[in-house]
Amino acid sequence: MTTIEEVRKRAEADAKTYGYYLTPQPELLQGFLEGLKTNEDRYGYPLCPCRLTSGNFEYDRDIICPCDYRDPDVAQYGACYCRLYVNKQVYESKNLPEVPERRPQEKIARAYGIQSVAPKPAPAQGMQEAPPTKTEKPQSEVKKKLWYCKQCGYVVFREDPPYICPICKAKRELFAEIESKIEYNG
Amino acid sequence: MTTIEEVRKRAEADAKTYGYYLTPQPELLQGFLEGLKTNEDRYGYPLCPCRLTSGNFEYDRDIICPCDYRDPDVAQYGACYCRLYVNKQVYESKNLPEVPERRPQEKIARAYGIQSVAPKPAPAQGMQEAPPTKTEKPQSEVKKKLWYCKQCGYVVFREDPPYICPICKAKRELFAEIESKIEYNG
Amino acid sequence: MTTIEEVRKRAEADAKTYGYYLTPQPELLQGFLEGLKTNEDRYGYPLCPCRLTSGNFEYDRDIICPCDYRDPDVAQYGACYCRLYVNKQVYESKNLPEVPERRPQEKIARAYGIQSVAPKPAPAQGMQEAPPTKTEKPQSEVKKKLWYCKQCGYVVFREDPPYICPICKAKRELFAEIESKIEYNG
Repeated sequence: MTTIEEVRKRAEADAKTYGYYLTPQPELLQGFLEGLKTNEDRYGYPLCPCRLTSGNFEYDRDIICPCDYRDPDVAQYGACYCRLYVNKQVYESKNLPEVPERRPQEKIARAYGIQSVAPKPAPAQGMQEAPPTKTEKPQSEVKKKLWYCKQCGYVVFREDPPYICPICKAKRELFAEIESKIEYNG
Repeated sequence: MTTIEEVRKRAEADAKTYGYYLTPQPELLQGFLEGLKTNEDRYGYPLCPCRLTSGNFEYDRDIICPCDYRDPDVAQYGACYCRLYVNKQVYESKNLPEVPERRPQEKIARAYGIQSVAPKPAPAQGMQEAPPTKTEKPQSEVKKKLWYCKQCGYVVFREDPPYICPICKAKRELFAEIESKIEYNG
Repeated sequence: MTTIEEVRKRAEADAKTYGYYLTPQPELLQGFLEGLKTNEDRYGYPLCPCRLTSGNFEYDRDIICPCDYRDPDVAQYGACYCRLYVNKQVYESKNLPEVPERRPQEKIARAYGIQSVAPKPAPAQGMQEAPPTKTEKPQSEVKKKLWYCKQCGYVVFREDPPYICPICKAKRELFAEIESKIEYNG
């Protein structure tokens, strides 16, 4: 069981690493930390307290706090979507900006199954339902690749590259795939 | 030859990167920096000044400063095992906490050969000692793997994953192996 | 189009991550940020404002800001070659140190084609010029390898390892190649 104190220390350490601050509003902060603790106890990972779980780690991965969108959001708006992490100006002004959802529509759709899918016809009476064919991938499979930052060489194993390189701050466009003839699984 | 000034600057830069402070007791600090310099001059790497070398880089790797245990120790106790790196609260209070040794028993045993190993019988007179068989690995070999953080994708090549992801602060349990059919050596 | 504000925020965030400061001279700072913006608009990446482009990303890679030489330069001299990034002492004293060019001669030579190359003889009249043979690599190809920090396991995909590990501050000598039997391209 994670304690609120552990969640707070981790958030503080992470804010310090990136030169951020935690939200200047104490009640908001307390609420976020409790939300993160609840999510970590429930799902095993600190899902963003302002978003909904899909029940699938791979589909939630981008919204585990600190989420994929925090760094570009703080760079552009001065705060993350939740306003848990803010920059110095926002921290000192105490004015929390509006931050639009940067998460791509296709990730939201995939996570929550929003695409309308025609319901499968029920098997005819007396017939067994066919087993799933080999090409039907399990729902959770997300193809990961080795990516590297062309500026500093930082390597990640993810579905897609980060928005900002955490090492040299290069933009996503400077990431490329490390191609080889072998298959990785993870 | 490393100078004390270089050792000090490196420790300060590292503390800043992670939002830590160096120990608030000046004599202790001076002693640690001298210990690190001595170890670096002697072994080629800044072995923890509070621990003993095994004489084998691979077995000492986890206790090269900053050691593998610093980040979880500062998160849990406010200071590393040595109390060279401390958090803000400890820095300001000047009260150094007791920090137990987190290094696993099996790594200590391996490093210092503490397990009792039955001595090999001397070869019978007139017989040549058999050459080591292929399965007998040289003492220094430590099997390394590619690991990645399932949250942020950070990749490391180590015997085992770090306790805390330096990029997103995810716990060790969120690391998994990048499996492939090829062998890596390093 | 990148704005000056974006360039400034990125530089500030990067300085914070590493515990650095931006140059204490406001006119200099403004000039550097404008230079970085101009270069990013022109080349697609923020080339060092104090150096010249080769017109080839791979040959310029080491001098994209923050350049490969910043961390060892700040560690040794208190400032990078440009004096855009400085440490606390330099920031407070406002005395900018002289920082010699650390970029290796062979990288400078390669980038600007300084080696004298004998001009190709013109093809004899009536003869077609031979097409380039297969062994003639295109000018931009730089062979990249997977390197890892033997201390902390940090992995990079680069031509050569960084001077200082951004994760644990180990020196370049502690990097080694991850060898395998496969070819990577990136």
